[in-house]
Amino acid sequence: MAANPKFLSYVDDHQADYIQRLSKAVSIASVSGNLSYVKDVEAMADFLMEQLADLGVTAEKRKIGTHSLEGKEVDLPPVIIGQIGNDPKKKTLLIYGHYDVQPALKEDGWLYPPFELTPDPNGSGKLYGRGSTDDKGPVMGWLNVLEAHKNLGIELPVNLKMCFEGMEENGSTNLDKFIESEKDKFFAGADCMCISDNYWLDTKTPCLTYGLRGINYYEIKVSGPDRDLHSGVFGGTVHEPMTDLISLMSKLVTPAGEILIPGIKELIAPVTDDERAKFEAIHFEMKDIHSAVGGDVTISDDTVKTLMGRMRNPSLSLHGIEGAFSAPGSKTVIPCSVKGKFSIRLVPNLTIKSVTDYVVKFVQDEFAKLGSKNKLDVYLTHGGEPWIADPNHYSYRAAHKATESVYGQTPDYTREGGSIPVTLDFANILGLNVLLLPVGRGDDGAHSTNEKIDTDNYIRGTKLLGAYMYELAATSD
Amino acid sequence: MAANPKFLSYVDDHQADYIQRLSKAVSIASVSGNLSYVKDVEAMADFLMEQLADLGVTAEKRKIGTHSLEGKEVDLPPVIIGQIGNDPKKKTLLIYGHYDVQPALKEDGWLYPPFELTPDPNGSGKLYGRGSTDDKGPVMGWLNVLEAHKNLGIELPVNLKMCFEGMEENGSTNLDKFIESEKDKFFAGADCMCISDNYWLDTKTPCLTYGLRGINYYEIKVSGPDRDLHSGVFGGTVHEPMTDLISLMSKLVTPAGEILIPGIKELIAPVTDDERAKFEAIHFEMKDIHSAVGGDVTISDDTVKTLMGRMRNPSLSLHGIEGAFSAPGSKTVIPCSVKGKFSIRLVPNLTIKSVTDYVVKFVQDEFAKLGSKNKLDVYLTHGGEPWIADPNHYSYRAAHKATESVYGQTPDYTREGGSIPVTLDFANILGLNVLLLPVGRGDDGAHSTNEKIDTDNYIRGTKLLGAYMYELAATSD
Repeated sequence: MAANPKFLSYVDDHQADYIQRLSKAVSIASVSGNLSYVKDVEAMADFLMEQLADLGVTAEKRKIGTHSLEGKEVDLPPVIIGQIGNDPKKKTLLIYGHYDVQPALKEDGWLYPPFELTPDPNGSGKLYGRGSTDDKGPVMGWLNVLEAHKNLGIELPVNLKMCFEGMEENGSTNLDKFIESEKDKFFAGADCMCISDNYWLDTKTPCLTYGLRGINYYEIKVSGPDRDLHSGVFGGTVHEPMTDLISLMSKLVTPAGEILIPGIKELIAPVTDDERAKFEAIHFEMKDIHSAVGGDVTISDDTVKTLMGRMRNPSLSLHGIEGAFSAPGSKTVIPCSVKGKFSIRLVPNLTIKSVTDYVVKFVQDEFAKLGSKNKLDVYLTHGGEPWIADPNHYSYRAAHKATESVYGQTPDYTREGGSIPVTLDFANILGLNVLLLPVGRGDDGAHSTNEKIDTDNYIRGTKLLGAYMYELAATSD
Repeated sequence: MAANPKFLSYVDDHQADYIQRLSKAVSIASVSGNLSYVKDVEAMADFLMEQLADLGVTAEKRKIGTHSLEGKEVDLPPVIIGQIGNDPKKKTLLIYGHYDVQPALKEDGWLYPPFELTPDPNGSGKLYGRGSTDDKGPVMGWLNVLEAHKNLGIELPVNLKMCFEGMEENGSTNLDKFIESEKDKFFAGADCMCISDNYWLDTKTPCLTYGLRGINYYEIKVSGPDRDLHSGVFGGTVHEPMTDLISLMSKLVTPAGEILIPGIKELIAPVTDDERAKFEAIHFEMKDIHSAVGGDVTISDDTVKTLMGRMRNPSLSLHGIEGAFSAPGSKTVIPCSVKGKFSIRLVPNLTIKSVTDYVVKFVQDEFAKLGSKNKLDVYLTHGGEPWIADPNHYSYRAAHKATESVYGQTPDYTREGGSIPVTLDFANILGLNVLLLPVGRGDDGAHSTNEKIDTDNYIRGTKLLGAYMYELAATSD
């Protein structure tokens, strides 16, 4: 079912109002994770509550506990849950967004004050401001949809449940517990879920995102002497922890990115024809990645291999060493204890546990071969499982049609190389198909200076979210 | 010729005076390299000048230029040169010492105020204080010798030239130029040289030190992307500089300390029978090094191999990486540019240049094998040549006899694994045999908190320096 044409016209006619709504949201500096912004986060929750009430949503602020912020125990930002519509004949869509933002200071290199939504004076349509795209733009997009329907007197085609949090930029503390505790209460009856908190791969092609890599982070600790040693006095006489560590780290991955830990490659789920077709259809050129990293340092010159390297294969990155000399200049000490740090991005069939078992055994075996008298410890510091959704689920089919109708383009089917932990919490605890439906473009700079959303993405994004509801209502399981 | 017995008795009878002299020297906080202590360094130079004048030495303070200290251009501490005796029938001995000290603050963990010479209240004979052993103890030792002879009315058996600097702990800036400029003036006519600015290998055995390792310090820089990258987004798609760097660093040295760079091992001078005998005679047990490093992490369990590993073989230590993550915790970034740092200790026949040629070629060749699109740079940041003296020179034979007469022990013949750059400046510019004749013990903690000298070492050290003069006068070339 195509979106109601009156809705689409209403959006076109109220662009200025919608930008005004986003402008108000951006002006509230709801930086989570910083004690001096606690009141602003609260103010943003209140603004959202007012808006929801005005638009006919039954909403409530829910306390989810406290946390320590700069040494002070304070309330976590409230979770806002809301519902509009309760027709058993309609599908029930759960949406998620967050109303907190990353920190931003003008002096970090912003062109304009970060908490004033500022249109590009050159007329490009870019709207600069912290939170413009992450994630106030998409959240306001949903409010825009509700406003249009209310003012037009049109019933929504689905029941909507919504969950907005204020801690996403600071670890989503306790959100998992909240979802768990409300699984059979507020969240009961949801048929599928939509999250708009990621971005297009490029600046031109809308996409649906159906997977996220997980991550295992490891430390290898090698220690020996009980104090740092002078390399003039002790170099050549003792087993140096750095030498052992560098040797171990060099055995994990090749310069071409191949993971050398036995067992891991074998775990990777085989590529299906459908999957390969989706990768081959993605709008992507090698120059896109060359421009993103600032040069041609790609392992492959093939777009599909590069996209799979990013989205569906595991990767291993060596991040650094704690305890060794790391400043400019020269220091000749032999550090007595060093910790090498690396992470492995996880993909379907690689679990936190299976990968950790292989990593620990391999590093221990390789260390034994060194014949060193130093001591080894290797351990996982944190892990996050990978996630993949069925991209042929009716929710994706609905989003596919909505994208075609709003953008006149077939969406790319993408996965994110990084992780969005709340996705897994919702998907795993509630057992729902989750659709990641981005609104912003790949160059929005979500966590950077000069974060922006393009007016066209904000306005067409509003239409997209609305159109998706209509297609969802009409698509059968 | 044994030392004049009156001199030896005088020393025994004036221990309290001598400790008083050291106490006065330690009380002047002559920390070089710190703007707020400039006046103290100057005061220490003046104290030394007064003492020398009192003892009949013709001395002068010489300016050697300026340097920048905490952003301010100030005079370098003066070099003090002095002479006593000018008899063409006698040998002329050049001695060197330094009157500046390392920084020290009580709150760093000192048991007593660092600039008050404090005898151990438990009666061990330890005298705690900054500079007590490095290098005010030995310098006051020479003054004690002069005082004894003056007060006893005994002529010195040799002509003495002395050179005391106030910048040793801060790089000996311009001392090389000063030596060069005075080579044919003040320093003309010196027959040999003695420096007391290092330590016994253990706490029981006097030693003569006849060699120092040099050092070449290198950086390997690998760079690729023009900005740091998110490992979720780019892991698996680009050549990561850390992976390349760790691979290169792992190829330099084995965990058993073997340098893998072709050509270097082959350069090492072969061990002579005399050399081996000197190593075998050194008083050293494996438990000495185990206690010094806090555990059994030695590569070999053999004392001679361990001593040669420290003193006469090159070693390669990996010190750290600049540009990678180095703090506690987890960070998942792919650094865009990293610098690996390592040093190679040099021994006779390994020159700065020959080793650097091998290192640069090897690292470049190994990098080429990686097939990486990143960029490599490998270069020497600083180098210091190794040094070795003829331990059978008459100056060493004299010190050998003096040690036997004062300590009743045959001295160990040792080399230092680290470097003492002034030694090379004097040896190379003046072309003199240099004897390193330590006064303090291996556990004095020269640059550490609670630096000390044992009263016995200070008093017998005074006798040793005097006795060495007598033996020197009597020993023929």
